Amino acid sequence: MLLLIPGPVTTRPEVKAAMAQDVAPWDNDTRPHYVAIRSRLLAIGHADPATHAALPLQGCGHFITEAAIRTLLPPGGRILIPTTGPYADRMTRLATDAGRAVVPLAVGPMEPTRAEAVAAALAADPTISHVGLVYSETGSGIVHDVAAVGAVVRAAGRRMIVDAVSAFGALPLDLSAQPEIDAAVFTANKCLEGMPGLAFALARCDQLAQSAGNASSWSFDLADIWQHTQKYFAGSFRFTPPIQVVFAFEKALDLFEAEGGQPARLARYQANARTLYDGMLSIGLRPYLPREVQGPVVMNVHAPDDPAWSLQPFVDALKDLGFLISNFYDTPTPSFRVGLIGAITPDDMRNFVGAVDTALHRLGVRNRAPSRQAA
Amino acid sequence: MLLLIPGPVTTRPEVKAAMAQDVAPWDNDTRPHYVAIRSRLLAIGHADPATHAALPLQGCGHFITEAAIRTLLPPGGRILIPTTGPYADRMTRLATDAGRAVVPLAVGPMEPTRAEAVAAALAADPTISHVGLVYSETGSGIVHDVAAVGAVVRAAGRRMIVDAVSAFGALPLDLSAQPEIDAAVFTANKCLEGMPGLAFALARCDQLAQSAGNASSWSFDLADIWQHTQKYFAGSFRFTPPIQVVFAFEKALDLFEAEGGQPARLARYQANARTLYDGMLSIGLRPYLPREVQGPVVMNVHAPDDPAWSLQPFVDALKDLGFLISNFYDTPTPSFRVGLIGAITPDDMRNFVGAVDTALHRLGVRNRAPSRQAA
Repeated sequence: MLLLIPGPVTTRPEVKAAMAQDVAPWDNDTRPHYVAIRSRLLAIGHADPATHAALPLQGCGHFITEAAIRTLLPPGGRILIPTTGPYADRMTRLATDAGRAVVPLAVGPMEPTRAEAVAAALAADPTISHVGLVYSETGSGIVHDVAAVGAVVRAAGRRMIVDAVSAFGALPLDLSAQPEIDAAVFTANKCLEGMPGLAFALARCDQLAQSAGNASSWSFDLADIWQHTQKYFAGSFRFTPPIQVVFAFEKALDLFEAEGGQPARLARYQANARTLYDGMLSIGLRPYLPREVQGPVVMNVHAPDDPAWSLQPFVDALKDLGFLISNFYDTPTPSFRVGLIGAITPDDMRNFVGAVDTALHRLGVRNRAPSRQAA
Repeated sequence: MLLLIPGPVTTRPEVKAAMAQDVAPWDNDTRPHYVAIRSRLLAIGHADPATHAALPLQGCGHFITEAAIRTLLPPGGRILIPTTGPYADRMTRLATDAGRAVVPLAVGPMEPTRAEAVAAALAADPTISHVGLVYSETGSGIVHDVAAVGAVVRAAGRRMIVDAVSAFGALPLDLSAQPEIDAAVFTANKCLEGMPGLAFALARCDQLAQSAGNASSWSFDLADIWQHTQKYFAGSFRFTPPIQVVFAFEKALDLFEAEGGQPARLARYQANARTLYDGMLSIGLRPYLPREVQGPVVMNVHAPDDPAWSLQPFVDALKDLGFLISNFYDTPTPSFRVGLIGAITPDDMRNFVGAVDTALHRLGVRNRAPSRQAA
C-alpha cells in the first residue's frame, strides 16, 4: 500500500527498519546522533551554526508552531498571518489561544500571498512584530513565496516565523540570506521522509536569547530548549524523546543526502507533480490549480460532476488497488487530494493514474468534468 | 543489550516489529485502533466510560503533565505539590511556568508522603484547589500512597492530579473509587512497555466540561482533545499522531493483557525488585532504601566507598556485559540506579547481579560498603 497523502508519507524500508531497537536516550552512544542530526538540519536550511540553532521538540507540527509563537512573541504580541488556508487557520488558533493577537491578511484559498499586500499591512500597523507564513499550504497545494514576503518583512524591520512543515527538505530555504526569519519549523515526517512524532525549529540564537520568559510554558519554551542543548551533553533532548523515531529520522537523512539533498528531492517531487497533473488531464480529470501555482507537495483534483461520484467509495476503491489518499478535502468545491511527497516516484504516479481510471469505472462515474457544486 | 532504566524500557520483539509499517492516521482502517486503545486504558484504570475519558497526546510525560495542570487549574490556580523528588520538582516547574501557583509540601527525598501532612496543608490554605502527587517517584524509587492521600483530598473537598507516568499499568489505580482524581497521566513507554512518543490522561468528563478555556494553549488543552474525541471519527487523534508508536503500543497492550494485566505485571516487577535487592546484598552492596519503602519501578544502590569507584566507567563496564543502566543519579549521596520495569524478568536480574560483581572487579573496587560522601 502506497500512502499518497501529504504526510505521514510512504517511507523507505530502511527508515522503518531503523526503529526496531531499544535505545537509552541519555546513553553516551546515543548523544552523538542528536548532535549530528541538528548539524545536518542547519545545513539543509543554509543556517550558520554561529547564528542559528536546530531545536528538537517531541510531537507534531502544531506543537512546534505553538512553541515558536509562544517563545518569539511575548504575551499580547501581534502577528500578521496571511490566510492561506487551513494551516494558516491553525497557526491563527495556536497564536490566539496562547494570548497573542493575530491580524489576518486576507488571501484567497486558491491564490499565492502577495508580498506587496504584506508590506501594506505592516505599514498600516506598526505594532505588528511578526509575520507568520505557511510556506506550502496543504489545503490548496500552493507554495507561498517565503523569499519575496521575507524581503518586505525585512524592509519593514519586522520578524518572521515560517511554517515549513510541508516544505522543509524539498522547497529551498536559505536562512543565512533571510535574517528576518526568527524561526522555521518543520517535522520529520513530511519532505524529509521520516516518521511522525518529532518536530524541529531552526531559530536565530540572538532572538532566542531575547525571548527567555516569553513562553509561559516550560514544555514549549524554545529558549529553554536552546539553553539545554548548549549546556547538557552537546545537544541531548530535554525530556524523553521518541527515540525510535529519532533513529528512523537519522536514516531518512542518510537517504536524503544520498539522493542529492534538497535540489534532488524537489526535482523528484516536481516530477511526481508533473506526472500526476498530466495524468489527470489525460484521463479527463482537472487539477484544481492552474499549473503555474501548483506546488510539488499536494495536489487537489476536481471531483467529477457525476451522480455516481462519492469520495469515500472512491478512496476505498483506490485502497483496494494499493493506493491510499485522503478521505476528506479542503477546497471550496468538491475535490480529492493526492500527496506528491514521500518515497514515491513518477512511476508510482503513472500507476496511480491508472488506478484512478479503474476506480472511476468501478464507481460507474461517466462524466469526469469538474463538479461545481458548493462544498 | 538489556535496558535497565526507568524508561524507555526494554520492549518485546513484537512491539518493535509493530512499528515497521506506513500508516495513514485518518484512514478508516486506523481509527478503530484508537477507539480500542482508549477503551483498554480506561479498563486498566478502573474508570467508567460514562464518567471518564482516555485522552491521547503526542509527546512525553512532561507534556501530558503540563496539559493536565493547564486544563484543570485556571490561570492563577493553586496546587499543593508534595516535594517527593525530581519529578515533583518537574511538576512544580511545569505549573509555575504556566502561571499556576505551587504550594510545596516538604517531603524528604527518601520518605513517603504522609496523608496527614497533606490534610494539614489543605486545612491551612482553603485557596488550594488541587493536589499534584507523583505516584512512583523515579528519583528515590518510592511509591507514594495515592489512595491514602486521595482520601484526605476527598475529605477536604479538593481535587487531585496524579503523575502516574512511572506507575500506570503496574501499580493499582482505581479511578472509580477515587472520584477526587481529576486526571491521572502516563506514557506508553514505562510500565506498559511500549515505545516513547505517546502520552495519555485518564480524566473525569465532568471536570473537563468545566475546564474549557483554562489551558491558554490549544496544543495542551485536554478539554479540546476531549471534545475532539467525541466529535470526530470516534476517537481519532487531534493533529498527527506518532502512528508507528501507537501501533507498537497496541501490541504492548496485547502482551500486557496476555500476561494477566496490572496484577501480573506488578508481581513480575516486584519479583524483579526482590531479586535485585537480595542480589545486591549478596555481593556486598546496599540498596538505598529500606526494603519496606522500596518500590517495584526503580532501585538506587549505594555507590561503594572505594577510590576505584566511578559511575561512568562502571556503566561502561556493565554495557560491555550487556546491561545498560542510567549514567547519573538523583540521590543525596552517590548511587547507581537500576530500572526494574520493561520486558525483563527475575532471571535477567540474577544475570545483572553477576554482571555488577564482574564490573566492580574490573574497576578494581574492593570496598563495597556504602559511600557516605556528599553528592
